[in-house]
Amino acid sequence: LIERKQEPRAEVDSSSNWWRREDLFYKGNQLHFAGAPVVSWLYGEQTPAYLYNWQRIQENIRRLREALQSTEKAYRIFYAMKSNRHAPLLTSLAQMGNVGIDACSHAEIEAALSCGFRDEHISFTATGVAREEWKQVLSHHALRVNADSLSDLEKIGNISPGRTVGIRLNPAAGIGYRQNPLLRYADADTLSKFGIPLEDITTAYAIAAKYDLKIDGLHIHSGCGYLSDQLPALQNILETLKPLWQQFKIQSINLGGGLGIPLVTDDEPLDLNEWSAVLRSGLKGFDGEIWIEPGDYIVKDSGILVTTVTQSLVRRHHRYISVNAGFNIHPEPVFYDLPLHPLPTLQRPGEPSSAILAGNINEVHDLWAKNIVFPPVEEGDHIAFLNAGGYGAAMSSHHCLRGNFTERLIL
Amino acid sequence: LIERKQEPRAEVDSSSNWWRREDLFYKGNQLHFAGAPVVSWLYGEQTPAYLYNWQRIQENIRRLREALQSTEKAYRIFYAMKSNRHAPLLTSLAQMGNVGIDACSHAEIEAALSCGFRDEHISFTATGVAREEWKQVLSHHALRVNADSLSDLEKIGNISPGRTVGIRLNPAAGIGYRQNPLLRYADADTLSKFGIPLEDITTAYAIAAKYDLKIDGLHIHSGCGYLSDQLPALQNILETLKPLWQQFKIQSINLGGGLGIPLVTDDEPLDLNEWSAVLRSGLKGFDGEIWIEPGDYIVKDSGILVTTVTQSLVRRHHRYISVNAGFNIHPEPVFYDLPLHPLPTLQRPGEPSSAILAGNINEVHDLWAKNIVFPPVEEGDHIAFLNAGGYGAAMSSHHCLRGNFTERLIL
Repeated sequence: LIERKQEPRAEVDSSSNWWRREDLFYKGNQLHFAGAPVVSWLYGEQTPAYLYNWQRIQENIRRLREALQSTEKAYRIFYAMKSNRHAPLLTSLAQMGNVGIDACSHAEIEAALSCGFRDEHISFTATGVAREEWKQVLSHHALRVNADSLSDLEKIGNISPGRTVGIRLNPAAGIGYRQNPLLRYADADTLSKFGIPLEDITTAYAIAAKYDLKIDGLHIHSGCGYLSDQLPALQNILETLKPLWQQFKIQSINLGGGLGIPLVTDDEPLDLNEWSAVLRSGLKGFDGEIWIEPGDYIVKDSGILVTTVTQSLVRRHHRYISVNAGFNIHPEPVFYDLPLHPLPTLQRPGEPSSAILAGNINEVHDLWAKNIVFPPVEEGDHIAFLNAGGYGAAMSSHHCLRGNFTERLIL
Repeated sequence: LIERKQEPRAEVDSSSNWWRREDLFYKGNQLHFAGAPVVSWLYGEQTPAYLYNWQRIQENIRRLREALQSTEKAYRIFYAMKSNRHAPLLTSLAQMGNVGIDACSHAEIEAALSCGFRDEHISFTATGVAREEWKQVLSHHALRVNADSLSDLEKIGNISPGRTVGIRLNPAAGIGYRQNPLLRYADADTLSKFGIPLEDITTAYAIAAKYDLKIDGLHIHSGCGYLSDQLPALQNILETLKPLWQQFKIQSINLGGGLGIPLVTDDEPLDLNEWSAVLRSGLKGFDGEIWIEPGDYIVKDSGILVTTVTQSLVRRHHRYISVNAGFNIHPEPVFYDLPLHPLPTLQRPGEPSSAILAGNINEVHDLWAKNIVFPPVEEGDHIAFLNAGGYGAAMSSHHCLRGNFTERLIL
């Protein structure tokens, strides 16, 4: 009845170096990251350790800004802090001053404020928000709020009549990481809990009128982790929005997050020229602002997770490598089938061979990779997982009391 | 490539009351738990709240002890603290004095000691343990350790020569919750990372001899959540052990955990008479002790998670009910396809109708139940999830900064 197929995950081939970047390469047998050997960034030998490269974060933002500038529309970027709330990272973004915050709980708003952001830098889009939480959120008067449902509109109107708000729409079409059903957001055939269906727009405006709410923005979050080959789906979503901004007075269209990055060797990066062309064409005639809420696109490839090999052995003709971190430290490989590319921080002589990479949690599915071609490593060596900067530390748990790790922002 | 099918989860029919127990029933329209209305156990109206009924925990242990007594063998029960490490619960178990602790990390050992257990009450069985952690673990001299691999045996021998140890076996056969592949432990066709394969036993004894280690126990954890219909698989596993305890001097056979409880209306409970009959027959002639390491069997049905309805609405002809907790508070429905049976704490007049039960995390899969028949509820009502006592709080995360909840042990 509840059977769920566990398909083999994408094979990670360590002989390919598709991941190589200016801030990520081998030199003298040492994996370098952010300008120095990975191991030099650890506190002593302490692992598991998340390392975040601030330079890379800035570069990702710069690239996004350029693409948005080429749409020739005004724009705002709100960083989805749920992807990584490391306070030094939030603080650095606040210092930089050209991105705001996408928050999805009042606690996130508080965390953003604590790092230097102000109410007017924050956009709040959440789901299933309780009336009491709405009261807290709406006490920040300059903060942007989006209503996720007709019920939200009623609550907002009740608590804060006259307010200017956005509404989150459910466009009944979705895109995402390799069409992974776990991450598909707004498909007609999934039971998406998000957003106001297009057919309820009239009711939404009626509720707004009742409370004198001004709806000046539309929000759609249509997917998660899309690359160039999924841009036609984004185009379709923009098409469905057109009648709305043509009919109503809309000053901003918030496209949510969802911009993806390559995770395995055959992933083509999202072409931001194509992306901005889709925005230009899909929003032709719209004279308001484009807002986006990237999380992963900003932080995912800026972060690596460094672990230590605790065991390397052959069991039933399979090579097993165990490290001192499990799925509780980063859930994406086990629970989302999103691979984190593993690399030894020290290149040892010898040929790569097939291997299984296991974590240290007492659960059978706690495998970082089931089927990889991996270079030689020995006990005590470090393995770095790439693209670990988003939804890792943020979703970590203390399962088996193995939840301790360090985080370091490299400026 | 990485597509994972998300099959519809078991339908939960709230009109059936299969879950009814002496400590769990409706009276005067109020759901009662542990002798009083559920809401009376909350601190004010504070939710999410885990409530654990100590009476039920004792009852579960008593039932297990009776079944083990009927095998006419000596036995020991080690509670798998990874399932629920609420300190008052651990302390109460320590006070009770007739169960020990199954720990899987040195941090768990410390937590058990902090609650009153002593080294000699603790059995340590873990995976991918680093040499440094083994040093910490082995510094507890009276503590029982099991080696999970040949590499573990080498490490233990190096650090603590002459020690008496158990070895964890990989029996190449597994059982579990409805054959859920995510929870199947030792199948030949899964890449189980656990245990020493039977074909490596001779090598294991050779390593033990090298370090004067005395192997006096066998450990097999064969599955997770098995019910009566899966007992033949347990029987098979015991058969594969027989040549070992006949050949070697073995004083204890540790069967791990895995005893299941009913989760949906058509689950038949595990018949402990049948279970003990399987043990009697499978271990006939074995004159050592039976050890078991139940976690869920002791705590799962003793705990409920109480949440508050934040929103109730119709979206695209579906009834959506949102509560103030998501999969980060209890991961089993979303990540393990193990349903938690939801019940309103207040029975309102009106007919049940089909509904989707959603959490408050900004992820599309954050649904407590996709397809249930559920009674009427209103905003502010409480929904209690049954069978929430294991692997809930223990695996919770602070995703979206929505990780706060209370826990209460009801004595």
